[in-house]
Amino acid sequence: MSDDRPGLQPRRCEDVRLRGFSGRASVEEATAWVDAHGERLGAEAIATREATGRVLAAPVEATVNIPEAARSAEDGYAVRSRETIGAGAYNPLRFSLQPATEPLREAAAALVAAGAALPAGADAVLPFSAAQVDGAQLEVTGAVAEGMGIEREGQEVRAGTAPVAASRVLRPEDAGLLASLRVERVLVMRRPRVRLVIAGPKGSSSVRHGDADGAMLAALVARDGGVVESAVREAVGRKALAAAIAAPGADVVLVAGRTGTGPDDEAPLALAEVGELALHGVALRPGGSAGLGVAGAEGAVPVVLLPGAPPACLCAYELLAGRLIRRLGGRAPGLPHAVREAEVGGKIVSGVGSVDMCWVRFVQGRVEPIGSAEEVSLGSVARADGFVLVPAPLEGHAPGARVTVYVCG
Amino acid sequence: MSDDRPGLQPRRCEDVRLRGFSGRASVEEATAWVDAHGERLGAEAIATREATGRVLAAPVEATVNIPEAARSAEDGYAVRSRETIGAGAYNPLRFSLQPATEPLREAAAALVAAGAALPAGADAVLPFSAAQVDGAQLEVTGAVAEGMGIEREGQEVRAGTAPVAASRVLRPEDAGLLASLRVERVLVMRRPRVRLVIAGPKGSSSVRHGDADGAMLAALVARDGGVVESAVREAVGRKALAAAIAAPGADVVLVAGRTGTGPDDEAPLALAEVGELALHGVALRPGGSAGLGVAGAEGAVPVVLLPGAPPACLCAYELLAGRLIRRLGGRAPGLPHAVREAEVGGKIVSGVGSVDMCWVRFVQGRVEPIGSAEEVSLGSVARADGFVLVPAPLEGHAPGARVTVYVCG
Repeated sequence: MSDDRPGLQPRRCEDVRLRGFSGRASVEEATAWVDAHGERLGAEAIATREATGRVLAAPVEATVNIPEAARSAEDGYAVRSRETIGAGAYNPLRFSLQPATEPLREAAAALVAAGAALPAGADAVLPFSAAQVDGAQLEVTGAVAEGMGIEREGQEVRAGTAPVAASRVLRPEDAGLLASLRVERVLVMRRPRVRLVIAGPKGSSSVRHGDADGAMLAALVARDGGVVESAVREAVGRKALAAAIAAPGADVVLVAGRTGTGPDDEAPLALAEVGELALHGVALRPGGSAGLGVAGAEGAVPVVLLPGAPPACLCAYELLAGRLIRRLGGRAPGLPHAVREAEVGGKIVSGVGSVDMCWVRFVQGRVEPIGSAEEVSLGSVARADGFVLVPAPLEGHAPGARVTVYVCG
Repeated sequence: MSDDRPGLQPRRCEDVRLRGFSGRASVEEATAWVDAHGERLGAEAIATREATGRVLAAPVEATVNIPEAARSAEDGYAVRSRETIGAGAYNPLRFSLQPATEPLREAAAALVAAGAALPAGADAVLPFSAAQVDGAQLEVTGAVAEGMGIEREGQEVRAGTAPVAASRVLRPEDAGLLASLRVERVLVMRRPRVRLVIAGPKGSSSVRHGDADGAMLAALVARDGGVVESAVREAVGRKALAAAIAAPGADVVLVAGRTGTGPDDEAPLALAEVGELALHGVALRPGGSAGLGVAGAEGAVPVVLLPGAPPACLCAYELLAGRLIRRLGGRAPGLPHAVREAEVGGKIVSGVGSVDMCWVRFVQGRVEPIGSAEEVSLGSVARADGFVLVPAPLEGHAPGARVTVYVCG
């Protein structure tokens, strides 16, 4: 199960318990590992009506033209355009009226509704503003050019083309287009099956961490297009953790808790026992005790070790686990948050040497920090409008600096 | 059922069939009507684990402190801070080691894991980097200040406060916080129950419009937090339309199709029969035949008439129906799309006198139009990255202008 993908140096992972981390991988290294292990899963066919928000796995080819035949684009009178030449308010021309279901006679017009088939021979639709009914006749007071008020056959979509590109997240309006094309099933990327392993209990506070992590991770996985395969609660001890990590059935395993330097922080050891611990300790705050590795047959299942403290769990999820899940499901790997550029109001303090996720608020359009990355809690995260990622070489952002805010919610 | 809300002038709605619109309401007037009829619905209690993405109806009050008692914020040794004063690499101090479950003795330290309860008497946690175990003793080589490495009782959330504000869309991290607070049920805004009435059939092309509109509207309603109460397919004729509009059970009714100037465009007449047609014709392209009104007992159910041509249906949904549904459900009424400011590349052409929804692509970071608002189809919408709204007084945007793009998908 050794990793010989190019560009990934094998790391020695030491037991950090009661000692602390002697070094940490950079966020770039951890991200590169995630990208190398986040190969797209397969596809599945589902009903088109359930496909909005899913990722299209193959382009949908149109088997019919839309429209299938020329049709009226507006309500009005179908005519032969050349017969309207010269018509005007001072030179009204008289047409006979006939049903739209019969071929258009000479100097005749047929009432048509938008979307309706045209009578054979018609090549334009005259708007009501240029025609007045006068008994069985129509007085035409304006000319129309050929093709006006008409949708040509295949004008919207031509048979044989692929109007919806693969890899895109299907939009509500795509659902409409696919219904027009009579596409009842589409091939979409399979949702990554995510196992949540909540380590615990470690004193009552830690159980609470587990509850918070479990609820939060379930919601984050759903946001990123994954589905929770199973949630293993309170895996206690190395043996239970190892069994929960190794069980088949998941495309990715997230372990929350027991990643740190305490005596019972056995998640990395459990992973090493049933798979390979590729990396433990990331230069990320909060979340520095995160780890990455593989388990399962032939090491095919990536495993992300997330710290138990909820803000650290959140941060490591956003930058590592979420990226992995988005990649497996064929989504854009970057953070899914809306972004907003803004000016820093109060100084944002960060640690040199780690990427810091600093939660912030907007106050009169400027960015104000909410505590430091070290002291953050879910209570303070709940007050935030978003977060700023401060790169490792910086010790923060001074007032006046322009930063990118990832907007929460 | 007359409308005497302030600022809304009653309009006379005439039969536009075979004549055309003699005038149209401005988008501002239509929006004001929507806002006056989009009163928030009631609330319902649901399980917290299902609440992410829902709108919180009342603030959640914390009934417990988090943490409930002081706890260790990191892995290390719980100590009395004043006993570490003077410790350093050249002046190591010796402490005895004891279990964390017993009150801290003098000159003693207890191993604690992050999140664990502190022994009585401890007021700081010493990191591993400042302590080495030496048999049953601990050699302390650094001092810690009071409070270091500790989370105080209630530091994250104090009992009696409301850490999650009402009216917000619950985020994944809120799910974690609510689990920490042991909140198992929350009060959220009820989802608006939306009836979709698809008018048809009107020739085969129009049926296709109905299929497209139905699929698209179902996905749009879900996006905006509504739930489809029922979908009435192929309501044919004024009587069937009127019955579908008037039936009880929906908070809002959307009728798609039969709003134009053709002979069988009876949706406005059907609405007038069972309720009140407040407005028919909006200065909006595409979507100019949209209408607004009320039905149901005491005119309490707003009804939006959407044009049948799918791009027109989409446009009128986004600006009118979607806004109504978002308001009813307590969401921000504005367009839910991510926005991006960008420079216009190729000229965006628009009609003076109407708000035009112009679909666009980004080409090398600049905005390029995809056809005009008049000729757009779902096939061209599928190629768009977003849309620009051109205000009524303008005839478009010249190259070089800065515009706001509402990003699709």
